[in-house]
Amino acid sequence: MGEHVIVCEVGPRDGLQIAKGRMPTEVKTRWIEALAAAGLAEIEVGSFVPPRLIPQMADTGEIVRAAVRIPGLTVVALAPNLRGAEAAYAAGAHRVSVPVSVSEGHSRANLNRMPAEQVAEVARITAFARAQERRMEVEAGCSTAFGCSIDGIVPPARTVAIAAALAEAGVDEVVLADTVGYAHPAQVRALVRAVRAAIGPKLTGLHLHDTMGLGLANALAGLDEGIRNFDAALAGLGGCPYAPGASGNIVTEDLVFLLESLGFETGIDLQALIAARAILREGLPGEPLRGGVAQAGIPRTFRAAA
Amino acid sequence: MGEHVIVCEVGPRDGLQIAKGRMPTEVKTRWIEALAAAGLAEIEVGSFVPPRLIPQMADTGEIVRAAVRIPGLTVVALAPNLRGAEAAYAAGAHRVSVPVSVSEGHSRANLNRMPAEQVAEVARITAFARAQERRMEVEAGCSTAFGCSIDGIVPPARTVAIAAALAEAGVDEVVLADTVGYAHPAQVRALVRAVRAAIGPKLTGLHLHDTMGLGLANALAGLDEGIRNFDAALAGLGGCPYAPGASGNIVTEDLVFLLESLGFETGIDLQALIAARAILREGLPGEPLRGGVAQAGIPRTFRAAA
Repeated sequence: MGEHVIVCEVGPRDGLQIAKGRMPTEVKTRWIEALAAAGLAEIEVGSFVPPRLIPQMADTGEIVRAAVRIPGLTVVALAPNLRGAEAAYAAGAHRVSVPVSVSEGHSRANLNRMPAEQVAEVARITAFARAQERRMEVEAGCSTAFGCSIDGIVPPARTVAIAAALAEAGVDEVVLADTVGYAHPAQVRALVRAVRAAIGPKLTGLHLHDTMGLGLANALAGLDEGIRNFDAALAGLGGCPYAPGASGNIVTEDLVFLLESLGFETGIDLQALIAARAILREGLPGEPLRGGVAQAGIPRTFRAAA
Repeated sequence: MGEHVIVCEVGPRDGLQIAKGRMPTEVKTRWIEALAAAGLAEIEVGSFVPPRLIPQMADTGEIVRAAVRIPGLTVVALAPNLRGAEAAYAAGAHRVSVPVSVSEGHSRANLNRMPAEQVAEVARITAFARAQERRMEVEAGCSTAFGCSIDGIVPPARTVAIAAALAEAGVDEVVLADTVGYAHPAQVRALVRAVRAAIGPKLTGLHLHDTMGLGLANALAGLDEGIRNFDAALAGLGGCPYAPGASGNIVTEDLVFLLESLGFETGIDLQALIAARAILREGLPGEPLRGGVAQAGIPRTFRAAA
């Protein structure tokens, strides 16, 4: 039995927010159920943002309330501010994920705030979460940690400083996000080391995009550095409405194939995962679905193949 | 100045052999010139196979004779047998690449011979090459070294034995090929080590496909093991007509982006490489062109960007 790696499916949030079509609530719920049934133990199911900004997320409350009824599933919801975190708590989310842009350009475009102001908002969110009866974890995602399509190079020292401030603000977990897909493996290795030196095991995960085709090479570099928690999206959906040039997340199916091939244990049934693409296609008929394993078929040599 | 890595462009051979359209000779020559002008120092320009089997390669003699006039370019031609190697020599190729399938199923389908018979053919080719006035290098490519869509698992010991027999047969270089794209990074690491233990520096390169989305992760694993020579195809063209399920080669543009980002020196101008896609599109209007960097644009943070 190999070491466990957590795959957090972010398709219902990161994948749908820039989709051209709007997935019906009933299909979204069925999709999340299928993902959970395939063995995904963590799913970011939506975001609590104003519906006028991202109409695809208008039903997030309803989606969270449905998802928390799935046994064993950790339900994550994104919230850009305290108000969203309160809504996430009210709906029953197990974890709230708060984006904090490291670059000022992306911070202004995505959050209409400077990074330091957003760190202060995170502190308000952790204080709120701690004051509640039910435990809700607070995760902070450091957006544009590997570069920004608006500001260009993002100095690693700035990411380290933001991560340290977030740890200080009381978050449970910090994730480094390659929001626009500029990362390369040497950078992943260096930044993971630098951030871990500052905040230790509070650095848990990587959120990678496949913009330049390097997504899984970057995941491999993260694995080499001991990262055991990766975001990914079924069929490689995704992007960021406020990050020009950003394209899809790493493909969940291909990531699971990589992890299981390397001897890690994900708890995910690759065949069932691929089958869940049918619901995605039903709910978003116009969206291009990516993915090597799904298109080529699971190789005969795959260790988990029946 | 970083360590040098050789990228051998195989698009004109591996890429075109399964293309639905047939690229006119004049366009092919212009494409090869553009690739060389972008800094690619090794190009596999075609294969000497019977035109009735692969009509796209019928003009390989003419293509080789044109390509050897490009200053500084190492012109590689594939030849499955002595007859093809003789034609490659007659046309002036600097290197002949001979495929040797490790798996029996692929060997029969692709070469109509058993692996041991093909090793004997390679010995005849090296004897022929040594007997000529002009030096022509002989490279052997171990097809299906990481698995076969016909035979399934390919035991590493068999690849090691074939590689050792090829070294014994007098080849200059051995390349390990993931013909059907089944490889994963741990397998790349292990097989490179095992083959190097058997034949030392005669193992020079990797020929990787991106079937499961793992192509560049596998290249990274190869780099970690000291491999400094990779085949790739512009726009990720490619496949094998006799390997069901095989899809495109790793994308040259994305590989160069990876290598230069990691601090390796390729001598290739990424912008000029991307521009060469226009000729490919002109010559094969119906073929889908892949590639992250070409589609997203070279990131602002790329070190070689102007």
